[in-house]
Amino acid sequence: MNDTPIFLRACKREPTEYTPVWLMRQAGRFLKEYRSLRRQHSFLTLCKTPELATQVTLLPIEKLNVDAAIIFADILLPLEPMGIDLEFTKGEGPVIHNPPRSRAEVGKLKTIEAEEDLAFVMEAITLVYRQLTGRIPLIGFSGAPFTLASYLLEGGSTKDFIKTKSLMYEDPSCWHLLMEKLSEAIISYLNAQVRAGAEALQVFDSWAGTLSPKDYEEFVLPHSQRVFRALPTKIPAIHFATGTSGILDLMHEAGGDILGIDWRIDLGKAWQRLGYNIGIQGNLDPTALLGPPERIESKVEEILHSAEGRPGHIFNLGHGVLPQTPEENVITMVEAVHRLSRDR
Amino acid sequence: MNDTPIFLRACKREPTEYTPVWLMRQAGRFLKEYRSLRRQHSFLTLCKTPELATQVTLLPIEKLNVDAAIIFADILLPLEPMGIDLEFTKGEGPVIHNPPRSRAEVGKLKTIEAEEDLAFVMEAITLVYRQLTGRIPLIGFSGAPFTLASYLLEGGSTKDFIKTKSLMYEDPSCWHLLMEKLSEAIISYLNAQVRAGAEALQVFDSWAGTLSPKDYEEFVLPHSQRVFRALPTKIPAIHFATGTSGILDLMHEAGGDILGIDWRIDLGKAWQRLGYNIGIQGNLDPTALLGPPERIESKVEEILHSAEGRPGHIFNLGHGVLPQTPEENVITMVEAVHRLSRDR
Repeated sequence: MNDTPIFLRACKREPTEYTPVWLMRQAGRFLKEYRSLRRQHSFLTLCKTPELATQVTLLPIEKLNVDAAIIFADILLPLEPMGIDLEFTKGEGPVIHNPPRSRAEVGKLKTIEAEEDLAFVMEAITLVYRQLTGRIPLIGFSGAPFTLASYLLEGGSTKDFIKTKSLMYEDPSCWHLLMEKLSEAIISYLNAQVRAGAEALQVFDSWAGTLSPKDYEEFVLPHSQRVFRALPTKIPAIHFATGTSGILDLMHEAGGDILGIDWRIDLGKAWQRLGYNIGIQGNLDPTALLGPPERIESKVEEILHSAEGRPGHIFNLGHGVLPQTPEENVITMVEAVHRLSRDR
Repeated sequence: MNDTPIFLRACKREPTEYTPVWLMRQAGRFLKEYRSLRRQHSFLTLCKTPELATQVTLLPIEKLNVDAAIIFADILLPLEPMGIDLEFTKGEGPVIHNPPRSRAEVGKLKTIEAEEDLAFVMEAITLVYRQLTGRIPLIGFSGAPFTLASYLLEGGSTKDFIKTKSLMYEDPSCWHLLMEKLSEAIISYLNAQVRAGAEALQVFDSWAGTLSPKDYEEFVLPHSQRVFRALPTKIPAIHFATGTSGILDLMHEAGGDILGIDWRIDLGKAWQRLGYNIGIQGNLDPTALLGPPERIESKVEEILHSAEGRPGHIFNLGHGVLPQTPEENVITMVEAVHRLSRDR
């Protein structure tokens, strides 16, 4: 009998009795308990109050029967101690009030000591870790340098990444300086999470797929690589982005023990292209969870079929759960992943 | 001496002295003459007045020295004669006031006779064709069934395609009925454009890359295939979409003599994966045109290098020119494509 949780064994590409599954944003708006908490507290209050963040992190665990917890936090939190004025507005999402607009402003971004500057995250991680008592592992996470840089430069969400790419093209040395500063903060943040109790890490480079392969290689890869190389080797690291069919090889080169992909490519084909010396996470389209249960089950089966039962597949969506997703559909999905992968 | 314009020879994968180039949205908001016309006329007035549409179509030809013209129109125009109430609002883009919300409403969508119902487009095509006097060819175009269906169902632009995908999953037979009706309209529309003078066609399935390969295969491929099979074989057809690295093979199967791709994949790799029995169009990131001229030129060179001078490459952006693009940067790009491809 192996005591290591199934999720961690899959991360190491060891055979498991069934395919482990968790969902990005599993502790989020699709849960009625979460919506009820949000009526009482702002989003940032939930993030910054360890007891509340712990409560939110644990909300989906029993209900959904997932194989991993992920700490409730936001990828933009490390920007605040760097000197960034961050706000979450209703409907519009994150707004950054003082995006750096010159080399001088980039130069002024502060170095962080994550243990102190983001102590509330570490406390929440330690609290969750204790409450989970080893049943399932806890995933810590951070945004990747590119994705943090893009939020920072655009001042919020964007479609075309015009300010981000313009800085790359017009002032590469300023771009690299920004990426170095962000990488340092991320390295401090992720290592502190591991010391606090995180047993796996996910690095979200959610929008890396918006770059051409050449741009990814020149402007992003060296920085992401530095981050992955600075993580504790014993802790599995998941490297996630969307729309990456054209840069899979480069993301692999950048690092991570598991590559998280979205639904825009067949999982089996992506894995084959990567070679099998890396695990793979994914890749159900989150909108599939708005459809009927039979459709959800057949899509789960397609993905499991595509993964061919190879060790190292972690089932997940290709992006976060949509807020309008019915809870029972998520339960249907998790149950189908467990049952159909056992049966294979 | 070969009298066939270089763009049409490239479409047939014949060797050419240099690589032909045009730009999606080359007759659009980045041109000051266009912005000036738009101050006098609404967008739909420009589309529906053949003399004005002709004037707009010809605006970029001399100025940019491109190798093809594309008729000025909008992909949503065929929806109007089908019974759809279409409006272009300032800032928000297209708004559809009566998206079909039931099988009965889909059933009521009208069959169109493009020659009559969209006579203004045909007149503009004939006027442009006469004025071009064979110097460069004129491209006609339409949205593909999926992209039209998504605008129709979402009622405008969207990020997650929730209504579109929900209909696929919940009521596949209603979905297929809608796609059949749209395909018929598109077939009528594109064939009428050829009779009016279009010498090549582009089918925009701009958002097809948002689908998983399985969903594309089940819900889109058969309909796009029907459209391509119903086009005159002598007229080259370009099949364009963005974010398609994971469905290149399926788009090839759906049809088209040339596949239009975006910058999210290396052009040479995409072409190799497709096999060389199809031409390829692309694939500069439109944001590159906001950068300095040296960067534009080096990116043009990268793409030409990746295409390896194979016959059948048509240079283009990976999506439409951004409105804020400086005109001189587009001129720099076109000149670089011509010069650097001649030198190879």
